[in-house]
Amino acid sequence: MSMPLSILEIVQACNCVASVESLLQSEDYYRFEIGGKLVGLVSADDITTLQIACSKSELPVFEFDTQAKAFTFSQWCGDRQSRSDAVAVLLSQMRTTGAWASLAKWRNELYPVYGESDDNEGIAVMIERAASYNFGIRTFGVHVNGITKSESGEVKMWVARRAMTKQTWPGYLDQIVAGGIGNGMGVWESVIKECAEEGGIPENIAQTATQGGMIQYFTRSELGLQPETEFVFDLVLPEGFVPHPTDGEVDEFYLWTLDEVVEKLCLDLFKPNCAVCIVDFLIRHGRLTPENEPDYIEIVENIHCPLPFPAPKYPLKR
Amino acid sequence: MSMPLSILEIVQACNCVASVESLLQSEDYYRFEIGGKLVGLVSADDITTLQIACSKSELPVFEFDTQAKAFTFSQWCGDRQSRSDAVAVLLSQMRTTGAWASLAKWRNELYPVYGESDDNEGIAVMIERAASYNFGIRTFGVHVNGITKSESGEVKMWVARRAMTKQTWPGYLDQIVAGGIGNGMGVWESVIKECAEEGGIPENIAQTATQGGMIQYFTRSELGLQPETEFVFDLVLPEGFVPHPTDGEVDEFYLWTLDEVVEKLCLDLFKPNCAVCIVDFLIRHGRLTPENEPDYIEIVENIHCPLPFPAPKYPLKR
Repeated sequence: MSMPLSILEIVQACNCVASVESLLQSEDYYRFEIGGKLVGLVSADDITTLQIACSKSELPVFEFDTQAKAFTFSQWCGDRQSRSDAVAVLLSQMRTTGAWASLAKWRNELYPVYGESDDNEGIAVMIERAASYNFGIRTFGVHVNGITKSESGEVKMWVARRAMTKQTWPGYLDQIVAGGIGNGMGVWESVIKECAEEGGIPENIAQTATQGGMIQYFTRSELGLQPETEFVFDLVLPEGFVPHPTDGEVDEFYLWTLDEVVEKLCLDLFKPNCAVCIVDFLIRHGRLTPENEPDYIEIVENIHCPLPFPAPKYPLKR
Repeated sequence: MSMPLSILEIVQACNCVASVESLLQSEDYYRFEIGGKLVGLVSADDITTLQIACSKSELPVFEFDTQAKAFTFSQWCGDRQSRSDAVAVLLSQMRTTGAWASLAKWRNELYPVYGESDDNEGIAVMIERAASYNFGIRTFGVHVNGITKSESGEVKMWVARRAMTKQTWPGYLDQIVAGGIGNGMGVWESVIKECAEEGGIPENIAQTATQGGMIQYFTRSELGLQPETEFVFDLVLPEGFVPHPTDGEVDEFYLWTLDEVVEKLCLDLFKPNCAVCIVDFLIRHGRLTPENEPDYIEIVENIHCPLPFPAPKYPLKR
């Protein structure tokens, strides 16, 4: 068994990209821009593949400026619909040719890229989730800490073990309910949906979840880049309630004391961004303080990484 | 009565300095460095006065590099004690000559500047609080939200009106208990001390406060620059308890519903950083969410401003 890590090491393993500037200075990344706004970052390797894929079309989807190390949509992709359609066609060709390995894990779930005027929900383009890491776009998710409180006040937390068949991080520990906000859904809408799908939590219980805030990190994994905003919720579950996944995404649930959760956390058994949500939970509930954690200030800074990409104004105007 | 502001406008009024880089690019600021680390920022005007004050001494405290727009301690000020002593002498001369107007509001309270190795509590120098805004050093404070919960679950918050005789922001609304962490004190130590002094809250009640996290902003006021880290606490007070200040710093206390608090907040009646603490409280307790606040993401980003100055590792090693 490996040595336990410090909590700062745990959060830095997730928030591992220092800044957009550091990536751009490394010369290995291109700016992905829409309407002059930076909406993502793509590695030079992925740019090469993307350029080849685009060159096969008479009407290329993207225009590349190798001098400025930036690319954007061609003029004929002038609005949300045309951009989304064009990217969908391009990515499905790239999936067929195996241009990007990530596309083998096609999700059939569209992620919104914000940056457009508000009257269009702020969405500039929708992109297949599997390619989100290649485009380095800002993503959004909800994480729900499912807890129980005994009469004496002891708090326990439900923890999920991700199914070995999950596309990402199989077998790692996870929140009872967590998911990306896809298809232009709202935040609360996503909480209710994920509670039902991932935890088998009925809507009347899910409705009692309370939002505790929002965390942000800029992470990089073998999948690619991911600047992510997570909306965090706490949900007090009845003591007799046992979660039961309805979508096959979880192998097992555990009900652990917070000490047990912290032990697994420092053994690096949690999916990295789920670990960050747990750390945020411990901070919000006064379990982690400057009195017991010397890296307190640096930890809080690491879970609130500024992300210089356009954000939506929720609730979305439909 | 003025028009209500949005909550984003309220937090941006406090977190009004975009970044260190923006200040340095403006050419109006000098870097204050110790041991090669950036520990503060000083305006060109204040630099001029500081240079004049230093030039009157045979053994100047600071060395200025006008080319690099930076200054640091002279070699003879090589440790915490010698630096603190030298600054104290210099500032008291400047107070006498009226070099910096801020020094008329001398506090007799020393603020730590971090950046030294850990075996010295991390403190590189202690500087009189009144001059902290001139040096643009990172400051630390505690804010305690004093609340009551009725049997039906209604939350009310105690709000203080700052005495008209306060050095800063007289007559503005404030948390029941809030204060800067001076003299190299610890975080929890400061909570207990401020609870007693500012709210007349006995230690047995103060001990039940729970920490909810930490917020950060980079503010500028007529006093100068202030990159600040605030540790935030919630304290549930017994329903019959009435706070009574023991130090004359508060004129009056009010017990308001959260709706009333938000109303005063948007009328800009709170001291700016206290307003930010209230916004953080509303976020942590699920009163402010993406469902009711379109600027949610930007608000949370503004109350977690990264501050690129050395931070202490609490609890301080005495």
